[in-house]
Amino acid sequence: MKKYELIENYLVKFLKDEVYKTGLKNTVIGLSGGVDSAVVAILAKRAFGEKILAVMLPSANSSQSSFDHAYELCEKFSIKNTSIHIGDLVKSYFKNIQVSNLRVGNFSSRMRMSILYDISAKNLALVLGTSNKSELLLGYGTIFGDLASAINPIGDMYKTEIFEFAEHLGVTQSIINKPPSADLWEGQSDEQDLGFTYRELDLALKAFVDEKMSQDELIEKKFDTKLVELITSRIRQNQFKRELSIIAKLEGKAFKT
Amino acid sequence: MKKYELIENYLVKFLKDEVYKTGLKNTVIGLSGGVDSAVVAILAKRAFGEKILAVMLPSANSSQSSFDHAYELCEKFSIKNTSIHIGDLVKSYFKNIQVSNLRVGNFSSRMRMSILYDISAKNLALVLGTSNKSELLLGYGTIFGDLASAINPIGDMYKTEIFEFAEHLGVTQSIINKPPSADLWEGQSDEQDLGFTYRELDLALKAFVDEKMSQDELIEKKFDTKLVELITSRIRQNQFKRELSIIAKLEGKAFKT
Repeated sequence: MKKYELIENYLVKFLKDEVYKTGLKNTVIGLSGGVDSAVVAILAKRAFGEKILAVMLPSANSSQSSFDHAYELCEKFSIKNTSIHIGDLVKSYFKNIQVSNLRVGNFSSRMRMSILYDISAKNLALVLGTSNKSELLLGYGTIFGDLASAINPIGDMYKTEIFEFAEHLGVTQSIINKPPSADLWEGQSDEQDLGFTYRELDLALKAFVDEKMSQDELIEKKFDTKLVELITSRIRQNQFKRELSIIAKLEGKAFKT
Repeated sequence: MKKYELIENYLVKFLKDEVYKTGLKNTVIGLSGGVDSAVVAILAKRAFGEKILAVMLPSANSSQSSFDHAYELCEKFSIKNTSIHIGDLVKSYFKNIQVSNLRVGNFSSRMRMSILYDISAKNLALVLGTSNKSELLLGYGTIFGDLASAINPIGDMYKTEIFEFAEHLGVTQSIINKPPSADLWEGQSDEQDLGFTYRELDLALKAFVDEKMSQDELIEKKFDTKLVELITSRIRQNQFKRELSIIAKLEGKAFKT
């Protein structure tokens, strides 16, 4: 069997194992119209059939085409779906005060998480995660927002691998062919935000993280100096997004006087 | 020095160390009017002076007295504070549909987290956590809601210890003397919800977790059978609240065919 067929089978089994061992049978996923959630939705459809609910959560700032692409995917794969507009929630908090796109984006991401978790409580379901390895390493996501989930089948796949996997799974071309975007505002581009393409980023991340090369070795290997600086500083600065809260440990200390 | 004086000094230093090493100087905390957040607020005031902002986040379901108690604490300790009512946010989502107290409570908890994180972004601040060890072990809290924070100084203290520590720190008597409540609705009581007092729960938790007794040993030691069943099953069932998302590991597996 080919690589992505093996991975598909492995991840479908992983999803079943992890969900069923909790005693629950239902799953829920936020479908953005991007390639990551498309891949997870298809895997979940293979694993759970009718027991996956895809939820589109558009905001006033996300693009109509994202919604259309998500809906098209659900049609093609017969994925049960619903949609909830988060515009009122966001407006109810920010009112008409002008704040940065980043603050609105992070708040919107947390509204989506809150809704997905509420739906999961209503449906006795688990929330599936859709963050890929590139995003997780670079901290390109919202902590306790889109980074929050119960089970994430794609957290160990780089973005460039996700695209290859998406081709294998038959993700609709409208999703595969557009530039990656967090869709926090119209026309946003991940690669413009980050300053490098995912192909460049992933090559450097693989060398640094998987092959454990040092910064100096990366430079020797002719990786762009700015690229090396970017990935190493982002990995370091965003470590907190991949960890639990820091808790003060008291046990074993000599306080019992 | 006495036990709680040592702990106080230790935790004030812990807070400073953990906050300053991120490069940030400001902190923010959600102040509920309960004893846990009161303790953390006082520690943060000792550590950061003017660089702690306490935020009261009342909802339509929380009690006026909780708000008053939180405000009274801020007055006594000169803690800078503000308040944001979350009623509109909660109503904007649930509309007038009748749902369980639990769903409204969890959603409200996540709205509070989202606001605290937005304020932390605006103020270049870190969100301090206020979950105690009893709650964390029993899973008596909302994942990605009140359980979410950057730094939690009291996560290794049992609730009964928090009360003793609160006396030492001079927490206002209105807060110390009322029954513990998540305040998700008027008159809610943690101990009624859980079916046992924190004194009973903490004794059993300490024996099971810290002294590593087995269930059988707890029963031999004359702990109530239902109490033992409750704590062990809650610890097991709520393990996910103390962990990160489960990510499918691909690295090192033989997919590279």
